[in-house]
Amino acid sequence: MEEIPVTDLFTVNNLWMMIATTMVFIMNLGFATLESGLTRSKNAVNILFKNTIIPVIGLLTYAMVGFNLMYPGAEFAGGFFGFAGFGLSAPEGWDSSNYNAGYTYFTDFLFQAMFAATAATIVSGAVAERVKLGPFITFSILYVAFIYPIVGMWKWGGGFLNTLETPFYDFAGSTIVHSVGGWAALVGAFLLGPRIGKYTPQGMKAIPGHNLSMATIGVFLLWFGWFGFNGGSVLSANPGIVSKVFVTTSISAASGAVGALFISYLKFKTYDITMVLNGILAGLVGITAGADQMSVLDSVFIGLIGGGLVVFGVVFFDKIKIDDPVGAISVHLVGGVWGTLAVGLFGNLAGMNQVISQLIGIGAVGAFCFATAFLIFFVLKKTVGIRVDEKEEIEGLDINEHAMRAYPDFAAKD
Amino acid sequence: MEEIPVTDLFTVNNLWMMIATTMVFIMNLGFATLESGLTRSKNAVNILFKNTIIPVIGLLTYAMVGFNLMYPGAEFAGGFFGFAGFGLSAPEGWDSSNYNAGYTYFTDFLFQAMFAATAATIVSGAVAERVKLGPFITFSILYVAFIYPIVGMWKWGGGFLNTLETPFYDFAGSTIVHSVGGWAALVGAFLLGPRIGKYTPQGMKAIPGHNLSMATIGVFLLWFGWFGFNGGSVLSANPGIVSKVFVTTSISAASGAVGALFISYLKFKTYDITMVLNGILAGLVGITAGADQMSVLDSVFIGLIGGGLVVFGVVFFDKIKIDDPVGAISVHLVGGVWGTLAVGLFGNLAGMNQVISQLIGIGAVGAFCFATAFLIFFVLKKTVGIRVDEKEEIEGLDINEHAMRAYPDFAAKD
Amino acid sequence: MEEIPVTDLFTVNNLWMMIATTMVFIMNLGFATLESGLTRSKNAVNILFKNTIIPVIGLLTYAMVGFNLMYPGAEFAGGFFGFAGFGLSAPEGWDSSNYNAGYTYFTDFLFQAMFAATAATIVSGAVAERVKLGPFITFSILYVAFIYPIVGMWKWGGGFLNTLETPFYDFAGSTIVHSVGGWAALVGAFLLGPRIGKYTPQGMKAIPGHNLSMATIGVFLLWFGWFGFNGGSVLSANPGIVSKVFVTTSISAASGAVGALFISYLKFKTYDITMVLNGILAGLVGITAGADQMSVLDSVFIGLIGGGLVVFGVVFFDKIKIDDPVGAISVHLVGGVWGTLAVGLFGNLAGMNQVISQLIGIGAVGAFCFATAFLIFFVLKKTVGIRVDEKEEIEGLDINEHAMRAYPDFAAKD
Repeated sequence: MEEIPVTDLFTVNNLWMMIATTMVFIMNLGFATLESGLTRSKNAVNILFKNTIIPVIGLLTYAMVGFNLMYPGAEFAGGFFGFAGFGLSAPEGWDSSNYNAGYTYFTDFLFQAMFAATAATIVSGAVAERVKLGPFITFSILYVAFIYPIVGMWKWGGGFLNTLETPFYDFAGSTIVHSVGGWAALVGAFLLGPRIGKYTPQGMKAIPGHNLSMATIGVFLLWFGWFGFNGGSVLSANPGIVSKVFVTTSISAASGAVGALFISYLKFKTYDITMVLNGILAGLVGITAGADQMSVLDSVFIGLIGGGLVVFGVVFFDKIKIDDPVGAISVHLVGGVWGTLAVGLFGNLAGMNQVISQLIGIGAVGAFCFATAFLIFFVLKKTVGIRVDEKEEIEGLDINEHAMRAYPDFAAKD
Repeated sequence: MEEIPVTDLFTVNNLWMMIATTMVFIMNLGFATLESGLTRSKNAVNILFKNTIIPVIGLLTYAMVGFNLMYPGAEFAGGFFGFAGFGLSAPEGWDSSNYNAGYTYFTDFLFQAMFAATAATIVSGAVAERVKLGPFITFSILYVAFIYPIVGMWKWGGGFLNTLETPFYDFAGSTIVHSVGGWAALVGAFLLGPRIGKYTPQGMKAIPGHNLSMATIGVFLLWFGWFGFNGGSVLSANPGIVSKVFVTTSISAASGAVGALFISYLKFKTYDITMVLNGILAGLVGITAGADQMSVLDSVFIGLIGGGLVVFGVVFFDKIKIDDPVGAISVHLVGGVWGTLAVGLFGNLAGMNQVISQLIGIGAVGAFCFATAFLIFFVLKKTVGIRVDEKEEIEGLDINEHAMRAYPDFAAKD
Repeated sequence: MEEIPVTDLFTVNNLWMMIATTMVFIMNLGFATLESGLTRSKNAVNILFKNTIIPVIGLLTYAMVGFNLMYPGAEFAGGFFGFAGFGLSAPEGWDSSNYNAGYTYFTDFLFQAMFAATAATIVSGAVAERVKLGPFITFSILYVAFIYPIVGMWKWGGGFLNTLETPFYDFAGSTIVHSVGGWAALVGAFLLGPRIGKYTPQGMKAIPGHNLSMATIGVFLLWFGWFGFNGGSVLSANPGIVSKVFVTTSISAASGAVGALFISYLKFKTYDITMVLNGILAGLVGITAGADQMSVLDSVFIGLIGGGLVVFGVVFFDKIKIDDPVGAISVHLVGGVWGTLAVGLFGNLAGMNQVISQLIGIGAVGAFCFATAFLIFFVLKKTVGIRVDEKEEIEGLDINEHAMRAYPDFAAKD
């Protein structure tokens, strides 16, 4: 029995944060397979390309400006905006608990960078099958480099949402990550208009995804990644909190599946796997804001309702002719708002003051994201255009933007 | 140099158990891709649906009753049955080493819940392409909520198999998990009867799986998950034991591939990838009962024999016209029995008394699982029916049960 | 507050090394999906088979001879060759920090064995679609059992490259793993000759891969695995070094995508996803030699140049009619040489002496690997033959070597 350095627990905490980082990273693959699976094979390369390039953009812009916008430190921060300068520069003590009890400077950066990438990835599904590649990439760069970290700073960087009398609460980002992506998804889908043939005079026509094996892989990888997303948001390997977060996260995901299955069976009289998959995601998004505050039973309710809402959401957005090929708006925006609100309704923080703070957060983030996403997409639309031409859309984006097909060996159905 | 809290090692242990949990979780994706890959595209959505909903069922029922049936605690337990009440309620000290040297209450629950899901998933492959969805889900709920945890209690919950003079040994579940699934797979495949066109007057007709890329993904994910399944069954991050378990597990998996390759090449004169994939799984199932007790050389033998047995098993079950589309009975039941027996033949525990105890465990679990699975499936068969009608089977379950196709963009072969 | 055993940090370190091992393991699935995705569906089973059997071979031969060839220990080692005997035998103290501050004997073995498998896997892509299965497996056994560990010993086993006045530096294996595979890939592709129809009198004909979803999955899994490959090469959970390695690795991967995208767009005027995917891999291979020595900005340059080089490499090898269906030579050989050299040009070790040592290492490893790979492939070519006959190549290897198809349900294009 000897004494050991106090940095020991720091090593454990940092190890968990690094592993959580790799799990959040794999969520990018989850989105890539989910989104390409739920859309048509003629656009699969395009979606895979976007989902490959987005984490690339996320990482590089977050290193350049995002991290220092989101976590400027007290010296450089106001309530709404702060900036600690360009690039990464490790402060003294960056690799010890002097920097943080839970992780090093570089772990901090990479974990947060993976979150940034996630926010941008959410958009790509909603605008799939008709958005021009160049403008979409331009949008993604601007949104992930500036909008996401500025909003994130409001809460996680110590900004005004964190200093409300009853602080706005968003444990791992139902609002700060998912609704940020969701608002942009809504704006993008709205400004692009629906895909050709989606809403006809004879009514809404379902456009089935080309590969439900891929979509299923996507959702399992996202659930897997969410252990890192929510579990890592504890910011240490604290056994009690992390393990409870694992349980609330999983129970809400499972309940989301049940909620979506139940409602979709009632509405459509069929076992719709895409609804179950999106129900799982809605359960995950829903629990994210309060995963550390909920009981097991709370998680059941949050998931059930989130899963049900995703079905209503999909039907609703089709009714108002906002064409979201993968259901991203229903999952990430509706689910994100629901989860954020749920913090005021369930669990340790429930109460009217908390509800009000949650509504302030939802509203402030929503207004800013809607406005900025609208501004960027609108300027792009009026200048370079954001939608491919009709011929390209019908032939598919793969052959026109990428000069290749995802599955060239196989014959297409008629 | 300062003193640090004793909970430090607890944090490490718990961290490993949580990570192992996520690895076992991903085995559900492994089964989903393996089973759908080894069956026909017209039933792919159905299989993906079942494999998505099973972990959902597993988690929720395990929270409701399973965990408290399987680990009732001394107060509520007899040798054959115990129950500590409905739902999850964390006991005092649940988040510290007062609960357990290795993990918190919630880690315990979730790790075990993932195992429960695994047992149910095994069945879905054997009954694929002809089982009705509703009755299958009913069976899964009953089997995972009651049968699996009752059997598990006999050994891991401190029941009669654990209190034999020479205790029955099953480190991570060759019997307690895999054969529990395997017996139900056998009963289900038997009561359903073979798929149309499988056994004709002209002999057995191979029905090839539709996507061997998916099947390969499945086996790699299962092997990956098995590091958590076996490695996590150490119930701590003990460096010596966990790392040895990793090695015996991997060596047995590799040897299983060699055994299956060798025997299948001798029998069929071709390099059959499905046999190699199932050989890996048989090696994994085989080592599971004694992964902590075997030398590297023992693991080679266990894997080689397990891999060989899987080939003989597939041929044998086809001979007696039990149609198992993915080879689940050969892998999980034959492999599970073999692995359990191997604990008496190889490694630290080898000896005649151990062989007898292993046979008692195999027999008791087999009798109970066979009987209960038979009862449930039989009642379902006589009431609602368990098999889709001929038209639906020929057209495929996807279009009839789910009103969708997994790959609608691609033309079918003639 | 009590005292705790000093083995605590050892447990953390070992835990990380074990988890890193599982991540490197999953790289085998990454290679399997990448290589099969980038080739034609008629050869998919063959590639999946090879990539399944290679880790099997790697594990078993590394246990038999490889580990003891690569890490013979001072007693059995010279500068160029050493051997500590057949099989695995854990030395005293193998499960404690007496063996190693970072991990147990079995963790050491398994982590290194996964690296060995990786080296062999690199070859399979370059020789795809025309190599005979039996001779390829023979080659793989010899190369992974003897050549890889002998070369590895030169540096990591304490051999002559490690004892140069300015020691050759290769942190995680740009040379020791990737170029070892890359040289064999080059020799194999050269001795086999190009696929039928690749280089015609009318010029080079692109032969597109059959499944870019699979290829994308492959690259994400490889990136994920690289966190274990590079992060595990720290050989402990040291928070500062591991987290920095995570960042340099990710930033170089992302920069590799940008470099490849930029150069390929300039050359081909299209957004080529296969180039972006290979660019990511080139960034990963490039940073591997110095991942612990580079700043964030260094990593950007290493990735950008590596990503650009991969495009030039693919064009170059096509120009000299070396047919590498997946770009493995450009990624692993060109990228590996670049990354090794970069240690002398960027980062903490930059300097002329280091450049010279890096060149010595590149040259010595290259000469030995080229010569031995040539010898093995040449002898196989002159005896059993290494290439399938024309009819088999045109029909596909799947039906001829494996008597099965990867996707039997789907109609082929014309």
